[in-house]
Parts: sequence; structure tokens; C-alpha cells
Amino acid sequence: MIVEPGELLAAINSPNDLKKLSQDQLVQLSQELRQFIIDSVSIYGGHFGASLGVVELTVALHYVFNTPDDQLVWDVGHQAYGHKILTGRRDQFPTNRRYGGMSGFPKRKESEYDAFGVGHSSTSIGAALGMAVASDYKKEFDRQHIAVIGDGAMTAGMAFEALNHAGVTNTNLLVILNDNCMSIDPNVGALKEYLTDITTSRTYNKVRDELWNVLGKLSKFGPNPQQIARKVEQAMKATLLKQSNLFEALKFRYFGPVDGHDVDHLVTILRDLKSIPGPKLLHCVTVKGKGYALAEKDQTLWHAPGLFDKITGEIYKKVPDKPQPPKYQDVFGHTLVELAEQNDKIMGVTPAMPSGSSLNIMMKAMPDRAFDVGIAEQHAVTFSAGLATQGLVPFCNIYSSFMQRAYDQVVHDVALQNLHVVFCLDRAGFAGADGPTHHGCYDIAYMRCIPNMVVSAPMNEEELRNLMYTATLPENAGPFSIRYPRGEGVMPEWRKPLKKLTIGTGRVVRDGEGVAILSIGHIGNYAQKAANQLVAEGLNPGHYDMRFCKPLDEEMLHNVLRQYKAIITVEDGCLQGGFGAAVLEFMADHGYSLPVKRLGIPDRVVEHGSQDELYKECGFDANGIAEAVRSLTAKATVASVVEVTL
Amino acid sequence: MIVEPGELLAAINSPNDLKKLSQDQLVQLSQELRQFIIDSVSIYGGHFGASLGVVELTVALHYVFNTPDDQLVWDVGHQAYGHKILTGRRDQFPTNRRYGGMSGFPKRKESEYDAFGVGHSSTSIGAALGMAVASDYKKEFDRQHIAVIGDGAMTAGMAFEALNHAGVTNTNLLVILNDNCMSIDPNVGALKEYLTDITTSRTYNKVRDELWNVLGKLSKFGPNPQQIARKVEQAMKATLLKQSNLFEALKFRYFGPVDGHDVDHLVTILRDLKSIPGPKLLHCVTVKGKGYALAEKDQTLWHAPGLFDKITGEIYKKVPDKPQPPKYQDVFGHTLVELAEQNDKIMGVTPAMPSGSSLNIMMKAMPDRAFDVGIAEQHAVTFSAGLATQGLVPFCNIYSSFMQRAYDQVVHDVALQNLHVVFCLDRAGFAGADGPTHHGCYDIAYMRCIPNMVVSAPMNEEELRNLMYTATLPENAGPFSIRYPRGEGVMPEWRKPLKKLTIGTGRVVRDGEGVAILSIGHIGNYAQKAANQLVAEGLNPGHYDMRFCKPLDEEMLHNVLRQYKAIITVEDGCLQGGFGAAVLEFMADHGYSLPVKRLGIPDRVVEHGSQDELYKECGFDANGIAEAVRSLTAKATVASVVEVTL
Repeated sequence: MIVEPGELLAAINSPNDLKKLSQDQLVQLSQELRQFIIDSVSIYGGHFGASLGVVELTVALHYVFNTPDDQLVWDVGHQAYGHKILTGRRDQFPTNRRYGGMSGFPKRKESEYDAFGVGHSSTSIGAALGMAVASDYKKEFDRQHIAVIGDGAMTAGMAFEALNHAGVTNTNLLVILNDNCMSIDPNVGALKEYLTDITTSRTYNKVRDELWNVLGKLSKFGPNPQQIARKVEQAMKATLLKQSNLFEALKFRYFGPVDGHDVDHLVTILRDLKSIPGPKLLHCVTVKGKGYALAEKDQTLWHAPGLFDKITGEIYKKVPDKPQPPKYQDVFGHTLVELAEQNDKIMGVTPAMPSGSSLNIMMKAMPDRAFDVGIAEQHAVTFSAGLATQGLVPFCNIYSSFMQRAYDQVVHDVALQNLHVVFCLDRAGFAGADGPTHHGCYDIAYMRCIPNMVVSAPMNEEELRNLMYTATLPENAGPFSIRYPRGEGVMPEWRKPLKKLTIGTGRVVRDGEGVAILSIGHIGNYAQKAANQLVAEGLNPGHYDMRFCKPLDEEMLHNVLRQYKAIITVEDGCLQGGFGAAVLEFMADHGYSLPVKRLGIPDRVVEHGSQDELYKECGFDANGIAEAVRSLTAKATVASVVEVTL
Repeated sequence: MIVEPGELLAAINSPNDLKKLSQDQLVQLSQELRQFIIDSVSIYGGHFGASLGVVELTVALHYVFNTPDDQLVWDVGHQAYGHKILTGRRDQFPTNRRYGGMSGFPKRKESEYDAFGVGHSSTSIGAALGMAVASDYKKEFDRQHIAVIGDGAMTAGMAFEALNHAGVTNTNLLVILNDNCMSIDPNVGALKEYLTDITTSRTYNKVRDELWNVLGKLSKFGPNPQQIARKVEQAMKATLLKQSNLFEALKFRYFGPVDGHDVDHLVTILRDLKSIPGPKLLHCVTVKGKGYALAEKDQTLWHAPGLFDKITGEIYKKVPDKPQPPKYQDVFGHTLVELAEQNDKIMGVTPAMPSGSSLNIMMKAMPDRAFDVGIAEQHAVTFSAGLATQGLVPFCNIYSSFMQRAYDQVVHDVALQNLHVVFCLDRAGFAGADGPTHHGCYDIAYMRCIPNMVVSAPMNEEELRNLMYTATLPENAGPFSIRYPRGEGVMPEWRKPLKKLTIGTGRVVRDGEGVAILSIGHIGNYAQKAANQLVAEGLNPGHYDMRFCKPLDEEMLHNVLRQYKAIITVEDGCLQGGFGAAVLEFMADHGYSLPVKRLGIPDRVVEHGSQDELYKECGFDANGIAEAVRSLTAKATVASVVEVTL
């Protein structure tokens, strides 16, 4: 199915084509672009609300600025579909987020118009400032550098760090604050309240009321105190609004708020801003999902709704013919509430992912015990550490790839003090269509080297529940991490009674001979499938679900290493320093010298695609695992023949 | 030598003793405390200026608040000597920062008065907020939670994240902004300028001038415009100052600025603040080094001066009897300028460590090419990535343990985009007296798993220079990390001509037989010493300086693994997933099965002490390495005897 662009949009294959339009054609172009996004996303899927919200801004930016020579950095990049469509990638849209296709985010390799690769939030100001300083250094004083950042992304510390630096430079840096009061979920925190204040002029109104109040009492000073007050008010308004502005405090020139859906006005003001030197911020008020009524109404649902009927607004769901396993996310969300009902020390913390992580279940059930702290992973962890010092047991749920943002806080604020914080690393392993910025490849390696840290991963829903329960027990009071993937588990009947696990113990999935498969986490189900295939072929591999990467189940490892001729390790994580490496370290420390084949994520950037496509590409889907067993079995047989011959 | 406390101080063994004093005795106590710090640090060493700057604040806080039930969190902790002295640790002061002695930072294990372990900056607000939220949840509404944070630490993003969260809570949280315009080096950035603005009332003055200007023109409205203006001014002043305040924008109640050296006034205002609910910020203006004239004058030098004569101010330096090797830091600083003189693409970036890293040499020589971005590691990396997109080659110098703060930015903004940024990881390995918060234990493990990343470490000054040069070459345009330790190298004559190294090649230090030592980085010098000892004993170990942990020198490894009977790996880094693990992975991938002993930092929190003390404790000083070789040699001999017997 092909989506037909409107008349004007059809003629635009680059921003140069866009610039040929007259300014009064931009309203129509915006309509066409919006329609194209609605048509495309309804059929091909992808992020939705964010791009609809910046249609006019996208058109205005490419109309006014000289991209790609002027550098345009989209923060996060959910909102860059319009940008991609206007910069020569309209016809690629059917491949968006598909294996081998176009990335869902701006990406330097994909287009010269994508000035900076994004995916994680809040990088745009720092990156654009780097570009702006480089332009200054190279004396390219005409080049413009624009960061488009949402109010949600503005809450992350690195955005503030960049503002703090930029404010004392004199670079051509324009920050466009895309204020729609949303992250994926509604934005939270003091900054959001502040932006509402200035958008509604609350601050100014307070001062004005005070002025009138005072002057009302001054009538004895002359005949016309109201007239004086009006004059004073008028004269001071500009100064006052400026001086009372947070961004002006950080030495940015502040402009706005302006209506982000008035493309004509945006063009005018962006043209004006081009000629103003130094760092400046344009405050644009937009509506996420603008132009699609349902998306405006339920912005979280329509952030990335999946495929839908654009006319009726029906979001297509697969209708399963039998009970399906739940998402690991929902198992987490419901189990946390179940645990918290029994244990009043348990708290929940998420940095801006209540719906994605399913912490929203606890936030609804126990609003005083579950916290969305905004896009602020660092703070989420140190805040959790603070809770833990008071004897509480916070579950701090952060996606594996976002936990990279809080690595120091995990080490310095939690682990060194051996505080009882439970880290749930959601989206561990391949994240799927979101691609390399969101893959959770490195957490086993970066967590395993931290002292006091327990590193675990469940193979199924029951194990996730039991690990969560085990992590709360007083005898395990210390940092405890549990990683699990995005998406469905394997157990339709998942609400099993909670059972305590002994830290550092694995589980025999099947005993066998010859080659043993050691797996960690959900990928163990692929190993199990492989083992079943192999058994059907007459082989007899062992399979052990290790559950804990640290501490390892030493007893089980000793048994396995004595019993088998060769080992295969399987993990949905990086091979460098990961679970397989942990097994090798154990073997070296105990003098074992069996052949070991490690399966996992190789040492290169793996692009986007479905999880199964990526497992296959990297050789650790069920077929890949089975093939590795066959190959090792052959070698081990040859080796034992040689041994006998000797 | 024992430092005698003054009369009042001598009687204070806990804050309860302090509370027995009358308020007018606090001035004298402050003098005595200041004198005790000067006396002690001059003899025993440690951080100096920061604690002098908060003497009065420390006295006032413990006088007014009910510590340890009220929670007092010192940010970073350099400034907490007074706090330690007043909370029962006066007599332990001679052991400060020594092996087995008192920590130089607040530490939960050390005292119940140390509410939160610190070392890295900017954690205090988030941690104290966690405590405050816990108190609310437990209905302990009387408890107070105080974070004392410097204006330097306030520039780090996580402080802002915490403010953003705290502002919308209603917790008993008091943030004391200790504004002394300094980090270790002078503080930088827009926030600092802003704080100067409000301290000097610049903002208010601008608005007032505007008011007078307008009213001056309004004389026709009545007889007394000046009088009206005065009234208006008076009435609006409070409102205006409040509304124009950055912290008020973030929903904190702002108080100040106050003189942080007026202990009497501090006591009064802290008492008042106790009864004001909700998040509030007290802006205290202090002088780093207060009360010691030389320290007030050169605040960077006197941040941690080493031992000195308190009367003359002479800082003792060892007078060497022969030319000494330089610090790695200085080799970095001078070599960077040398490289930058030849290559105009090279830039320098440091997050608030110009003097510590020696980037100040470049900042002085080439001020338009070297940037101190403030305490903002995340921004330092993403800013560097932005520079790199424009074809520049930034050297981003960050201490190994602080690089944990920027881990996501290294992965997401640099490595995934394969940008040409050179990371210099200073203070890699044991940091020494600063202890576990500052040890750079994990960087090999956390860097090695990142795609596209080169991971290297020089064994001496010449190699550092050559690695730096090699990292700048166009054929190596990608992320490149170089780790080196705090302190002196081994080559008094270090200014050798720059030579290109081939990526992934090591160096034969000595060929031998039996056992081969593979070392990475400076610790190789200890391996060399061990090898020399062993040769004197009649053994003949090989020693290979690997230089690159990623990519490994595969050719060298194949040769070594074929030639020797056993391998020892040595690294000043964590054993989990580190360099030794990389060697094991290589061996497994290529089917080698020699015995391997890995030496490095064990999987526990290693406390403070000199680097040599800690190497010894962990068994990888020269004696430890030699002993490991002897032990493996014995085993390998037995093994080969057995082999022969068969």
C-alpha cells in the first residue's frame, strides 16, 4: 500500500524545493505533511503524537534555515518524521523502523540533514553547542545551530549543564523549547509548573496586582494614581518579564511563548531570530498529537499507538486464539503492587516511564509510594538511595540503555554504601524497532563489575516474580539488579505463588551429556527450543538456566564443568565482559579448560529490527544455538577420540 | 605530634556538647575550630580551603538542628572536616585519609552523623530529598533534611534534576547553597554569573532604575513622583526579588544571600527556617579558605595543599636528589599543547578539573581551544561529540571514576556514531587517599564492551605521548580512550619524539619461558620489577606490555600462548570483565587452555590508602606479582612432569 502525498508535498524532495514555495503556501503544506504522517503511521506504525505536534515548526525551520549547512538537532527524535519526509526520505517511509529500513530516529549515517544521532533525551543543546563553538572557531559566523527540545527533555540534568555552558558563550545557538507538557507520559516537576506560569503570565500578573494594590493606596499623592500605575506597568512589563525569566537568568535571550502551530508567525519570528547573535531560546507552545483529535485527547496512548484505522481511530490489536503470556512489564507492575501490599517498606521509582515500565499500576494503587521523577535517571537512583538510607526498599525501574545515564549513581550512591535498592532493568537486550540507541546491550558487563551488586535475570514470569520477592528480603539487603526484556514472556498462567530463591542458584532445565548450554534470562527459552530440536535429532545437550550472573551458582558450575565436554553460554547482552566472560573467569580461577563457545551480542553496532530478526542475525536464535551445539559436539567427539587414541 | 584543641572545642565530643554553649560563645568556638583545622591539616594533610569556608555554617547547623536525627548531607564532602571534628572524631584526625584511618569524606560506616556517603559532587539534594520523602511517608514530620551544596556542584545536572523534583513536593528540605564562586578551580558558567547578579542585586537594581526613569518623566501627574516611586519601590521590592529568582521559579522558597561567616546570624536564620515547611534554599556567601590569608588569596592552590608551615605558609615539597619523573597529568597537559600546535583540529575539554588534569596548560596557551565546562561530565562528552561532528578532534579529559557520570554519553553520543573523540581517563586505577569514591576501578570493563571504542593504557610517559599522538591521526578517527593513573610516571627524560603506534599492538618487555606476564598500563612497571626479582632468583618469566586492551594484540597473544605454559595478567582495574577477562575471551575463542592467574582489583570495596599500600593489599604490587609467578611456575612444572609421565 502506498501513501500518496498531497500536491505540494509531492514536489518536495529536499528543503530547497520547500524554499520555492511562497510563505502563504506553508499552511497548506503543513496540512499535507500532517496528513501524510497520519496516513503513513496508521499503516506502517511508529511514533505518532510527537511528530504531529511539530509539523508547523518543522516546515518553518527548513523554510527559514539553510539546512544542512545550518545544523538542526532534534532532541530524542520521536518528533522528526516531518523532518525526514521533507529531507528526501518520503518514499522510504514504508521501511520506517523495519529490519534493514529507515531508522525511527535521526541518524548521521542516514542523511546529511540529520546533524546528530539521537534516541536518548536531552542531548541536543550540548551537541548543538559543540557545533556552534566549532563554527566560531572556524570563523563560520553565519552558520546557525538549532536544538529543538521538549519540556520533558528539559528536565534532564545534561540539558541544564549545556544551558549553563552555552549562556556564557557568544555562539549562534537557538534552543527551541517545544512545550507540550508531555514526555511519553505527562511531564512532571517544578520546571513544568514554571513553564505553565510563564505561558499563562502568572508571574507577571502577581507583580502587576501588587503594583495596583500599592498605587490604589496612594491616591493622596495626586489626582491620577491609576493613570500613573498604567504608565509604570507598561514601561516595566518588558523589563520585568525578562528579568524574572529562568532562561534569562542563565544568560539566554528568551522569546515567547509563541503558538507553535502558526506556521506563518513561526517563519517571521525565526527569520528575526537569525539575525540576533548569541544564545537564545524560543518558547513554542504546541499540542502533542495536533490535528488528530483522539491523539490530542489521550497523548500517552497515541505516543506510539501501533497500526490503526485513521478514520475510526480503532487501534488494531491481534486477537489471540488462546491465552497469551503477559508482558514482562505487566508482571513487574502487578507483582510490585502485590509485594508492596504485604511489605510497607517497598516503594517505586521511575524516571518518566510510568506507562512504559508499568509502574503506573502502583502509582495508581499507592500514589504516596510510587514516584515519577521526570526524565532524570541520575536523580531517580540517588533519590532511591536516599529512601534506602531510611530503611525503605525502593524498586528503581529504568530501561537498561537509560541506566547508562545513572551509572555513577549506581556505583557511588548505592553500591559503595551497600544500600538496599532493587534495580529493575527493563528493555534489557535487544529493544527491537527502536534500534541501537535503545538496545540494552551492556548492562551485564557494566553491572557485574560493581561490588556488592547482585546481577540476575529471569527466564520467565515466575522467575521474575520470585526474583522481585527475593530482592526484598532483609537478608538480601543490598543492591540487587534484575534484567528482563521488552515484551511478552512465556507463561499465560503467570500468577504463581511467590517463592524465595537462594541468591546465586540456577536451575536445571535438562540434564544431558556432551555439550551443556548455560543461559541467563529470557533468551533461555530459545536455548530450550534449541535443546528440544537437538533431542529430536538424537543429541542430548544439557541446559541450565543460571538466573544469577553474579554471584554465579558455583556448585552447579562445578557439576556442569565436570560432567560435560564443552560449554555454550547464551545471553542477550554484549559478549565483552558479559555472562559468558563471567563463566570463563570462573573456569580460569578453578582450573577448568573445556572448550567454550559464547553466544550473545557481538562487538559492533547492531541496527534495528524485531528482536527475533536480531537474535537470528547475531546467531543466538534457537537455530543459531542449535547449530553451535552441533558444531561443538562434533569437535568434542573428535577431541575425545584423540584422547582415547593417546 | 598532637594538635591541642582550644578550650571550648576540647569539651565538645558530640553536637549535644555543642548545644550546651550559649549562642554568644559560638564565635569563639568557630575560631577554635578554624584553628584546629589549620593546625591539623598543616601537619597531617588533607583538603583545606573548603572546610575553612564553612566553619561558622558547620557550628550553626549542629547548634540548631537535632543531628543525627535531622539528616545533614554534605555535598562532595571536602568541606566536612569541621563536621567530623564536632561529631566525635576530633582525636582521629591524625589518621585522616591514611591507610586504615578515617576517611577524608563523610561515610555512613564511620558515623551515624554522616547521613550519606559522598565524594562525587552534586548528590546531596537528591539524597536528602529521598530522606525527606521517607520521613513524610513514615509521618515523621518534625525531621529536618539539609543538603549543603557549593555553587560549583550546583552546575551538575543531577542537582538540577533533584531541584525539579523537590520543588513540587512538600517535604522538610533545606538546601544550603554555599556560594564561594569556586569548584577546585574557579567556578564557571551562567549559573555562577547569575548568583553574582543576585548577590550584588544587579537584577533588582535594573528594575528599580527603570522605575525611577519612568517616574521621573511623570512629574505632570502630581507633585511628588519621587515620593510615589519610593513607595512603589518599597512595596514591590520583596515581590520582585522573589519572582525574579531562579530557585523560586523552581518552586523553592529562596532566602538570602546571607553572610556565611556570621555565626550568630546563621543561627537565627536557621532557627527561623526550621519552622517554615516545604522546600527552601538558603543562599550563603562564603569565602573558601576563610581565615587563612594565603588560602583566601590562591584558593585553587590551597584546596588541598599537602603539608605546610602554618606560620610562614610554606608548602613543603620533597627536594629530590636526582631528576624525578613527571606526573602523567603534566605529560598529558604539555603533550596536548604540543600536538595542538601542529594540528589545528585538536581541542581540549575538562569538566571543572583544569588544574587537576593539567588542561590548564592548554587553556592558558590556547584559550579559544580549551574549555572548562563546569562540573558537568555528561555535557563535557556530548559537547565533545558536537565538536567532533564538525571535524575537530577533542581531547575530553575526565577522571576514570567521574567518567561513570558520562557513561551514556560515551555510548550514545560518541561510540554509536563512531565520532572522533579522545577520552583521557585520568586517575585510572587506585586513586589513593581519596578512597573508594575516587578509585577508577571499572573503566576497562565499562569501556571495553562499547563498540568502536579503542581502550588503551600507557606503561610510561613515552607511551602516553605516543598514544595521544596516535589517537589524533585521521586513520584512527573514532572513539579512543587512554587511561593512566594519578601521579608520577617512570621517565625523568620524558620528552621523546612523538611516534605513531599501530592500534592493537603491544610491546615485548622481555621474552622468557614458563610463565608470561601480560600487563596493561602503568602497573606494568611493577610487573617489570617483579620479573627482575625473579630473574635474580633464576627464573625466566616473559613480560609483555599490551598497551591496548581493545583491540588486543592478537599476533602477540598467539605467540605468547603457544610459547608459555601459564599466563598472569596484571591490571590496575577490576577483575570482573577487565583486561584479564579480555585475555580469557581471546583464549576461549581460539581454543587455548593454559592456566591463567588474573591479578587486579578484587570484587569488593577497597578503602583508601596510598596506591602502593593498596596494590600490596590486593596482591599486585611487585612482590604479589612475583609470588604469583613463583606459584604458577611450580604448578606448571608439576603439570609438565605429569604430562611427561603419561
